[in-house]
Amino acid sequence: MRISEIKAIRKAKIPVENLFEGIKINEKTALGRAITLAESNNQNHRIAAQDLIERCLTIKSSSIRVGITGVPGVGKSTFIETLGKNLTVLGNKVAVLAVDPTSTKNKGSILGDKTRMQQLSLDPNAFIRPSPAGESLGGVAQKTKEAIIICEAAGYDIILVETVGVGQSEVAVHNMVDFFLVLKLSGAGDELQGIKRGILELADAVVINKADGNNITAANMAVKEFTRALHLNPAKENGWVTKVIACSAIENSGIQEIWTMITNYIKNNRESGYFDEHRNEQNKFWLIQTIENRLIENFYQDKAIQSELENQLKKVSQGRTSPFNAAEKLLNLAKKHTD
Amino acid sequence: MRISEIKAIRKAKIPVENLFEGIKINEKTALGRAITLAESNNQNHRIAAQDLIERCLTIKSSSIRVGITGVPGVGKSTFIETLGKNLTVLGNKVAVLAVDPTSTKNKGSILGDKTRMQQLSLDPNAFIRPSPAGESLGGVAQKTKEAIIICEAAGYDIILVETVGVGQSEVAVHNMVDFFLVLKLSGAGDELQGIKRGILELADAVVINKADGNNITAANMAVKEFTRALHLNPAKENGWVTKVIACSAIENSGIQEIWTMITNYIKNNRESGYFDEHRNEQNKFWLIQTIENRLIENFYQDKAIQSELENQLKKVSQGRTSPFNAAEKLLNLAKKHTD
Repeated sequence: MRISEIKAIRKAKIPVENLFEGIKINEKTALGRAITLAESNNQNHRIAAQDLIERCLTIKSSSIRVGITGVPGVGKSTFIETLGKNLTVLGNKVAVLAVDPTSTKNKGSILGDKTRMQQLSLDPNAFIRPSPAGESLGGVAQKTKEAIIICEAAGYDIILVETVGVGQSEVAVHNMVDFFLVLKLSGAGDELQGIKRGILELADAVVINKADGNNITAANMAVKEFTRALHLNPAKENGWVTKVIACSAIENSGIQEIWTMITNYIKNNRESGYFDEHRNEQNKFWLIQTIENRLIENFYQDKAIQSELENQLKKVSQGRTSPFNAAEKLLNLAKKHTD
Repeated sequence: MRISEIKAIRKAKIPVENLFEGIKINEKTALGRAITLAESNNQNHRIAAQDLIERCLTIKSSSIRVGITGVPGVGKSTFIETLGKNLTVLGNKVAVLAVDPTSTKNKGSILGDKTRMQQLSLDPNAFIRPSPAGESLGGVAQKTKEAIIICEAAGYDIILVETVGVGQSEVAVHNMVDFFLVLKLSGAGDELQGIKRGILELADAVVINKADGNNITAANMAVKEFTRALHLNPAKENGWVTKVIACSAIENSGIQEIWTMITNYIKNNRESGYFDEHRNEQNKFWLIQTIENRLIENFYQDKAIQSELENQLKKVSQGRTSPFNAAEKLLNLAKKHTD
């Protein structure tokens, strides 16, 4: 660390050392404060958070990271609560994090309402943290990824990352987990109608939830239909073919089978070397992604660029200039500003 | 234009005015030279090309731009030649351009070998231009898009843009045309096996080529299978549902039907206003895309960044730093370089 950075941390009065000691003994207050620090956009906090995260990385972890997505109403909270309780009973420590770029400080965010996972949140071997609020997806993703590192340093060996079933947030979560699970409901028969193709390509498993009561037959049909549709997708690079499985989170049926599937998957990938390779690829992805997002953000932050962009967009839409000429003009303007 | 730009054009001795006059009367030599100018990476040439393109934009065109893709062997050249001849006979002027980022100056590129479209290349109402060579996809796409503007100023009212059936080049072509056509062959029955989902989502029409001789039954089955699979995709934002149609380019059957489908599509979209809206969206896309690509390119061009990137990637893969800390370090380094 540079002296200026040490000074910045001192000035912000952040007891990085104490936080780190607290994390190491899984003190939940320290854990919460550390994640809050990582979520801050204050420059001195950022520097302290970087220091803290590098310390956390010195603690070796053999965690499993699982991403869980599904549209509202599919029963994500109940599924995570049931899965989480099954895991803590076996002696695991489970952290539940979330990526939801639509959440704001005032409105409720996914996991924001802890009562949604009442039993799990009281479990001493579980830690639940809502999505960081009021941020771009890139910001939320970075903060959640940093929270994963902090939780792993605190000894959490299973990290569940929840996301909402919309857009790019699923891609972001897919890029930070070892196993990606898509929750679905059985419906009116034509299950595939309207489902985004992309999401099925990301899924390591499709789980048909609420396979209970009168719903069992429909759930089994949905399993068949998804299995057939997924057969059209090529196998993944590690040879894995997406599995389809039914469960009832409310009745705790099928959950154990899902966890066995996940641990077998992880075991095979650890043995083949794919596990480490995949995590390394993900880290490279986040490095490159962060740089590129920031370069672009910085560009558009410039007031002069903003007004010239408006002007050029108008000229382009009137057919008076080409988009390439317009881009050139804007890039030259930005260059002049930094020269 | 600024005085420095006028000077640059004079210095490079580029007769922009003459080229523009030549283009206006569809002088093919001028057309070829103008596109070569737009393809140059020389800074003075770029400035002259920008001037030329803005002049070309003053000529109103009511062209139709059609993108055509398909894997090697599907019969793209024959299809384009047959379609092109059908169109010039009706009095249209047809330009054929290409996007192939794999082409190099020495190796053959798609459309590089004019003998592939021997008859069309001799047609006075056709203009064929191979893909610009030895460039990134972004570069090739920009140059092809500029060539479209130049051809339209020369009075070409139908622009066919060919691309190879691989990766991102199809997305790029999709973003510069009014109608996107995917050529396929009928095969062993399971047509959808291995086909990339993404490409079917881009397609406005899937054309099963080589529906001739012993192949007719298989082609009709392929039409059925694709129609069924496409039914799972939601309708496009303009309400269009992707059509599937069989043809034989070699026997000139089905080609007229394809063109009727395209012109009906264009007519409906012109009436609804979607046509202009869509072109405007495409222009915005290229403006934003060009800026973002260039910002990123410039960043990685810096030698100090390159070596620090290598260093940081190593630290990340050894688990000594997080990808976000690494990105921060690199961004700070770049900032220092421009300060």
